[in-house]
Amino acid sequence: MKKIIYLLLLGLWGVTTTGFTADAVTTQAQNIQEIRLSLDSVWVVMGGILVFFMQAGFALVESGSVRGKNTVNVLMKNYMDACLGGLVFWLIGFGLMFGINTTGWFGASHFAPNHLDDWHWNLLFFQMMFAATATTIASGAMAERIHFVAYVVSAAFVSGLIYPVFGSWAWGSLFEGEGWLKSLGFIDFAGSTVVHSIGGWVALAGIVVLGPRLGRFGRNGQSHYLAGHNVPLVALGGFILWLAWFGFNAASTVNATVSIGRIALNTHLAACAAAVAYMFYALLRGKAILIRTTINASLGGLVAITAGCATMTPLFAIVTGLAAGLVVSVMPVLIEKLKLDDVVDAVTVHGFCGAWGTIAAGLFYEASPFNSQIISIQFLGVIAGFVWGFGVAFVVFKVLEKVLGSLRVSKQHEQRGLDYTEHAELSYPEFQRDVTFETDGMTKRH
Amino acid sequence: MKKIIYLLLLGLWGVTTTGFTADAVTTQAQNIQEIRLSLDSVWVVMGGILVFFMQAGFALVESGSVRGKNTVNVLMKNYMDACLGGLVFWLIGFGLMFGINTTGWFGASHFAPNHLDDWHWNLLFFQMMFAATATTIASGAMAERIHFVAYVVSAAFVSGLIYPVFGSWAWGSLFEGEGWLKSLGFIDFAGSTVVHSIGGWVALAGIVVLGPRLGRFGRNGQSHYLAGHNVPLVALGGFILWLAWFGFNAASTVNATVSIGRIALNTHLAACAAAVAYMFYALLRGKAILIRTTINASLGGLVAITAGCATMTPLFAIVTGLAAGLVVSVMPVLIEKLKLDDVVDAVTVHGFCGAWGTIAAGLFYEASPFNSQIISIQFLGVIAGFVWGFGVAFVVFKVLEKVLGSLRVSKQHEQRGLDYTEHAELSYPEFQRDVTFETDGMTKRH
Amino acid sequence: MKKIIYLLLLGLWGVTTTGFTADAVTTQAQNIQEIRLSLDSVWVVMGGILVFFMQAGFALVESGSVRGKNTVNVLMKNYMDACLGGLVFWLIGFGLMFGINTTGWFGASHFAPNHLDDWHWNLLFFQMMFAATATTIASGAMAERIHFVAYVVSAAFVSGLIYPVFGSWAWGSLFEGEGWLKSLGFIDFAGSTVVHSIGGWVALAGIVVLGPRLGRFGRNGQSHYLAGHNVPLVALGGFILWLAWFGFNAASTVNATVSIGRIALNTHLAACAAAVAYMFYALLRGKAILIRTTINASLGGLVAITAGCATMTPLFAIVTGLAAGLVVSVMPVLIEKLKLDDVVDAVTVHGFCGAWGTIAAGLFYEASPFNSQIISIQFLGVIAGFVWGFGVAFVVFKVLEKVLGSLRVSKQHEQRGLDYTEHAELSYPEFQRDVTFETDGMTKRH
Repeated sequence: MKKIIYLLLLGLWGVTTTGFTADAVTTQAQNIQEIRLSLDSVWVVMGGILVFFMQAGFALVESGSVRGKNTVNVLMKNYMDACLGGLVFWLIGFGLMFGINTTGWFGASHFAPNHLDDWHWNLLFFQMMFAATATTIASGAMAERIHFVAYVVSAAFVSGLIYPVFGSWAWGSLFEGEGWLKSLGFIDFAGSTVVHSIGGWVALAGIVVLGPRLGRFGRNGQSHYLAGHNVPLVALGGFILWLAWFGFNAASTVNATVSIGRIALNTHLAACAAAVAYMFYALLRGKAILIRTTINASLGGLVAITAGCATMTPLFAIVTGLAAGLVVSVMPVLIEKLKLDDVVDAVTVHGFCGAWGTIAAGLFYEASPFNSQIISIQFLGVIAGFVWGFGVAFVVFKVLEKVLGSLRVSKQHEQRGLDYTEHAELSYPEFQRDVTFETDGMTKRH
Repeated sequence: MKKIIYLLLLGLWGVTTTGFTADAVTTQAQNIQEIRLSLDSVWVVMGGILVFFMQAGFALVESGSVRGKNTVNVLMKNYMDACLGGLVFWLIGFGLMFGINTTGWFGASHFAPNHLDDWHWNLLFFQMMFAATATTIASGAMAERIHFVAYVVSAAFVSGLIYPVFGSWAWGSLFEGEGWLKSLGFIDFAGSTVVHSIGGWVALAGIVVLGPRLGRFGRNGQSHYLAGHNVPLVALGGFILWLAWFGFNAASTVNATVSIGRIALNTHLAACAAAVAYMFYALLRGKAILIRTTINASLGGLVAITAGCATMTPLFAIVTGLAAGLVVSVMPVLIEKLKLDDVVDAVTVHGFCGAWGTIAAGLFYEASPFNSQIISIQFLGVIAGFVWGFGVAFVVFKVLEKVLGSLRVSKQHEQRGLDYTEHAELSYPEFQRDVTFETDGMTKRH
Repeated sequence: MKKIIYLLLLGLWGVTTTGFTADAVTTQAQNIQEIRLSLDSVWVVMGGILVFFMQAGFALVESGSVRGKNTVNVLMKNYMDACLGGLVFWLIGFGLMFGINTTGWFGASHFAPNHLDDWHWNLLFFQMMFAATATTIASGAMAERIHFVAYVVSAAFVSGLIYPVFGSWAWGSLFEGEGWLKSLGFIDFAGSTVVHSIGGWVALAGIVVLGPRLGRFGRNGQSHYLAGHNVPLVALGGFILWLAWFGFNAASTVNATVSIGRIALNTHLAACAAAVAYMFYALLRGKAILIRTTINASLGGLVAITAGCATMTPLFAIVTGLAAGLVVSVMPVLIEKLKLDDVVDAVTVHGFCGAWGTIAAGLFYEASPFNSQIISIQFLGVIAGFVWGFGVAFVVFKVLEKVLGSLRVSKQHEQRGLDYTEHAELSYPEFQRDVTFETDGMTKRH
């Protein structure tokens, strides 16, 4: 009997201990889940913060690549497209891109979201920065001649319509339904097509409609290089974009995992390889290694690796980058031959390298490389991106042209420089000569 | 009997298993706690790193906004206030602000901390960057005329006295006791008042005592705009400040949670809205949209959302930002009418937008919006900030003026430029004309 | 009997509950381990991203410190050494440094890694950025005279041989075996010697072999200061390096812990103290406080604290920084007396401050301060670093000189500026006078 009592006590102790332990285990499970959610939030928010910095990178690359008389204008375009674009993406872009998507063609809920669950705010923040990137890509291509208000309105269309609708095809929805490209298995991890090609094709439509800058092409069809005014700004912009790209690509996991290191490494190696490819291309042809092309090559490598950075080995990342470097070495010359004037080679860097990268993501897809079905779908996505991005942007620019009379500033204003004519300011009032700007006009300007 | 033995064995197995499990659960609880602490450390330290970058943002905004002849001076002020301020905050600021606070009016322990528990080092690092921010705000307003040593000494007072004492009222203590404003329920999540208004009111005291730059106001009371020399620096500075603000606001949770995304989003939307508000303000009045005011508007939006970013919905964040944009559109003209010369509009951006944001945090307080009691306490905090910040800074500047003879450099030095007279250097020796500076004077200078 | 049955049921319930709990505990253990790994990945990758940004910091400090005619050249050197260096480190550097190290003298596995376990990709990414830092240090010292291709080849040797072999001594291996310095207990937490001194001694070898710039030293042995063309670039570069250093030092824990805050704080305090030390040094000697020396002093403080930031108290971090500030105040004058021309004082900032910091890490080693055995090993590491870094680099530069005919560009090219002669571009075509560069030569340049 004593034994039984001992046994009883032992059993009871076991049971109650187990009870306590089970409670502790449940609490711990909650703690673990909460930590996991917090960690993912930290990663996604840090990623969004890094991607925001792309705005500074674009602003510097573009403002350094134009002539000094158009510098304020480029900076203002970059600043305002981010600001207006942010509000527009919150208002309608997010809903179109990630809202409930019953048709596969666009989302249709969560507009102007004011109450979401906590986790979705993190995603909205992250995605807003991607929209801002897609939007700002076109500004550099169209620099030195587009009217400020025309540009800002077009940017609102990119943030609120062109980018989010294509995005809904490839990445939607967060809530219910699936975009048609996504359901086909289209691979575009961080947006070689969704963000960059779309931005590049918008730029292409813009420069087609706008026409080239005065003096860019001579009467005999000769082309003249209009040198940018400040190379260190371009170089710093290149470094900042590169930095931000690590957030762009590695945080597109949207949760913190051990795999982010390889994504970041692939991103880095592709950029390195692209610049090196251009260097050898120039050396072998006995030409000077131009700094702007070097930087553009590295950016082309970054654009190209964006689609496949999570699903290829480092060796293929290097191959992807090398080819992107060659694209940047060759394409601008062809675009120039078509008498198109792309001030920063955005069509090449974002459009063509984005297309190449999307195809490379299929070619070198780790789980099934060189699979013709996967590659076909990648091509389909690339073509869909071009048709939608270029097509809608072309219509938007043409309609804007009709509505506003002209997308371009007048010849006189273009010659004088947009800083003075559109913004009543100079970038470097002490260093710019032959300028009759009155610096005491502040009361008038306010 | 056999059954009993089986039972006994079963019971023993249960008990021992439970024992092992309980041990494992305890170990896991320790691991979970350690991970939580590590994750919070990562978030807080990353936040501090981002906030540090504000130093670069201020340095660029300010150096681009002055004339080329005072650029080295502004950069040196920014560099040295961070360096001296860091040491001073470690020496006494941290103790005053977060030390044991028995009276509610200041902390009085943990001076020059050399041994703290691990977690508190993270907080000290984070808070040191906030102190540096509050300190550096005033430098731009007082640019182009204050004596370098006078400025550096005043900066030490901000880091070591003005900022930490007010901080102790609103945020103290980390250890024991509570600041009087905090105990009233004052809401200032990341420091619209604690950091920015305090900095802005110090700037106001500075420009009142210093007087305007030569040539800023004509004999007939006419004001002359003295254009800054380098707009791209200002724009890049704006982007860097914006970037850093995500750390400032979202990491002020001081632990990693899923809620950081909404804080970052609110921060971003307010900045966007403020710039857009100014754009429409200028467009409606038929005036040029000035780039420096655009950037200042976005910074005003960031300052304003800092108090309430964690406790209002995105819609109210946008409203907070819109109103801040209007504050930045209007206030500099009023300040100019008072013949006050604020080179970078720091009083408006940090002082007034900080005050507005602190009130907005009360007005739009999620848990109880438009509650008159909450709003009253917000007003009380705003007023206390002004009285303390402006009052003590005014005394400091007046005493410094007495002790040093003058806060200002001489007229000749001001005309010649402080780079040459105070620092024996030029910012751009190749591009600045009519300058007799000898570049071979290195041995003399060492 | 009933009791026994109850007991039996109770026991069974206990056992099965325990079973379920044990399963849950095992799952949780896996989750916890996965979260720990994810968190460490986030920290290491964020650290690597920050360290990458050092490339921009060096590019700015160096390009601002040279004359405008050599700005593109410096930027290109910085851009290409990162690109080529990245590929070379992946190809052979990583294997030499962290591969299986049976002899203690170098690693010999994991070359051109294409398949690693997930965690090691994070480390490779992080370490690749350290290699890029070590490589780029020398570029500034040798600016304005070295041939572009010669520099790029030498940089490949630093990334692929000089840095990783020394690194294997102090930090290897990740897999098997141990470097000989590491096995002696050499303390160099984040690389005062491994990264910075090695870079500094390579720079020293470079300037010894290259000789000074034209006009740097007069016929009578008089030295002429050749002023850099753009101070704001230098200041921004200083801030960016400082920012990046938090990643450099605090993420060198290689896992996320609560101790990262003190490491970041020590890093910050040392930099502050170094700049303040120089300020007082200049004030006491009645000399102007030069901005480039101020910035260099803070960088010297950062270099010095890199070895011991994790193993000393903040008070000793300040002492380490103060002494580094004095090293930067004094050493450049001595180097100049030796008729060595170090354009950015890289030998002082990285070489000598790195050596001092490595010794300071021994002197102030928390667990056993002022221990002569520890200090001896620190000295041994410093000497080994000098012998290896200077020695191999000297041979590399001498061999390159033989192979290429000369490391230097011709006198005419040096006078004309390397931007024009090596890169067919100008940094500021609108602002640089007396320049006959044709801006319409684009077709020729492509």
